[in-house]
Amino acid sequence: MTGARGRARGRRPGDTDTRAHILEAARELFAHDGYERASMRAIAARAQVDPALIVHYFGTKRDLLAACLRLPVDPQSLISEINSHPPEEHGEALVLSLVRLWDRPEYTQNFLAMLRAGANDDQARLQLQDTMKHSVQHAVAGLVDDRSTQRAALVMSQMSGLAMSRYFLCIPEIVAMSPEDLATAVGPAIQRYLWGDW
Amino acid sequence: MTGARGRARGRRPGDTDTRAHILEAARELFAHDGYERASMRAIAARAQVDPALIVHYFGTKRDLLAACLRLPVDPQSLISEINSHPPEEHGEALVLSLVRLWDRPEYTQNFLAMLRAGANDDQARLQLQDTMKHSVQHAVAGLVDDRSTQRAALVMSQMSGLAMSRYFLCIPEIVAMSPEDLATAVGPAIQRYLWGDW
Repeated sequence: MTGARGRARGRRPGDTDTRAHILEAARELFAHDGYERASMRAIAARAQVDPALIVHYFGTKRDLLAACLRLPVDPQSLISEINSHPPEEHGEALVLSLVRLWDRPEYTQNFLAMLRAGANDDQARLQLQDTMKHSVQHAVAGLVDDRSTQRAALVMSQMSGLAMSRYFLCIPEIVAMSPEDLATAVGPAIQRYLWGDW
Repeated sequence: MTGARGRARGRRPGDTDTRAHILEAARELFAHDGYERASMRAIAARAQVDPALIVHYFGTKRDLLAACLRLPVDPQSLISEINSHPPEEHGEALVLSLVRLWDRPEYTQNFLAMLRAGANDDQARLQLQDTMKHSVQHAVAGLVDDRSTQRAALVMSQMSGLAMSRYFLCIPEIVAMSPEDLATAVGPAIQRYLWGDW
C-alpha cells in the first residue's frame, strides 16, 4: 500500500512534473505516517526537492493536504459514463466505475491518507466531508433530479463503507471480489438509493 | 462527542466501578486525543485513579485499547431480537437495532476511538478488523446458513459506511434521520445482503 518507496527517479523536466512528484510523495507519506507525523522536510526529501519549493507551490502543510485531496476525478466524465447506461443499470455502473477508479494505487493511498488525516484532525475531517459531499452530490445531481441530496447521502453511506471494507479494514471477502462482482452484489443497493421510492 | 469532561464523580465503591470508570476515561481520551497521544497518565487522571491501577487491571496501553473495543454487545441478544421478526423484516430490524445501539454516546465514542486508533496503528487496525468481523459474522451466522461469511462482509460494507457517515463524516442528511428513518431507507439493502440471491 505504501508504493515504491525510494525508487530511483529522473530529473524534473518541468513545473507540472515537480508538482506531481510532490503530491505523490505527500500522499505516500500521509498514508504511511499519518498527517501529523509526515513532515514537510520528509515529503521534500522523498520528492527530491527543496522544502522551500513545496511552500512555493502549495503553501502550508494543510494546503498541501488539501491539494492531495483534490484528485483529478472529473465528476462530469463519471456522470457521462453512468448516463451511457439505461437508468435501471445506474447502480451497477456507479459501483463498477468507482471501484475501478479506487483500486488504482494512487486512489487507495489517497483514501487512506484522507482517513488518517481526518481521524486525527477536525479540520482535515471537515475537508474530507466537504470533498466527499461535493463530489458525490455533484455526481448524483447529474443523474437524478428528485431528492438528489438525500439520495447522494445514502449512496455515500454505502460507498464509504465499501471503501472502508476494501481498503482500510481489508475484509478478505470484500478484497477477493472483482469490481464486476461488487457491481453485481452492491449495485442494486445503489440503484435503490438513486431511483427507489423509499 | 467528547462526553462530560471533568464532571464531578463520587468515590469508587468497588472493582467493577473502577474498571468501568477507567474504560470510560480511556474511551473518551482515545476518541478525543487519538490512541497515540492519549497517555496512561492522562487516562488515570481523568478516571481519578492511580496509573498503577490501570496497569493492574488492564496491563499495557494496547491491552487497555483491546478492552475498550470489547463493548458489552451480546451478539446472541441481537440475534434473538432480530429473529423475533419474520425473515422478510430482518434487514430493517438489524439496522434499527444497531443504529439505536450506536447512537448511545459510549458507542459513538468507541467507534471514533477505534477509527482513530486504527488509522494510526496497524495492530489496532487489525484488532478493529477482527472485532468487527467476529461480531458481524457471528450475528449473521445466527440468522442465515447459506454463504453467511460473504453475506456478513456485505452487511459490514453497508453498516460501516453508515457509521462513518453518521458519526465520523457527520453528513447532515444522515445525521438528521432517526433510527426508524434509516431502517426504512437502508434496511432493504441489508435484507438483500442477508437473504438475496446476488
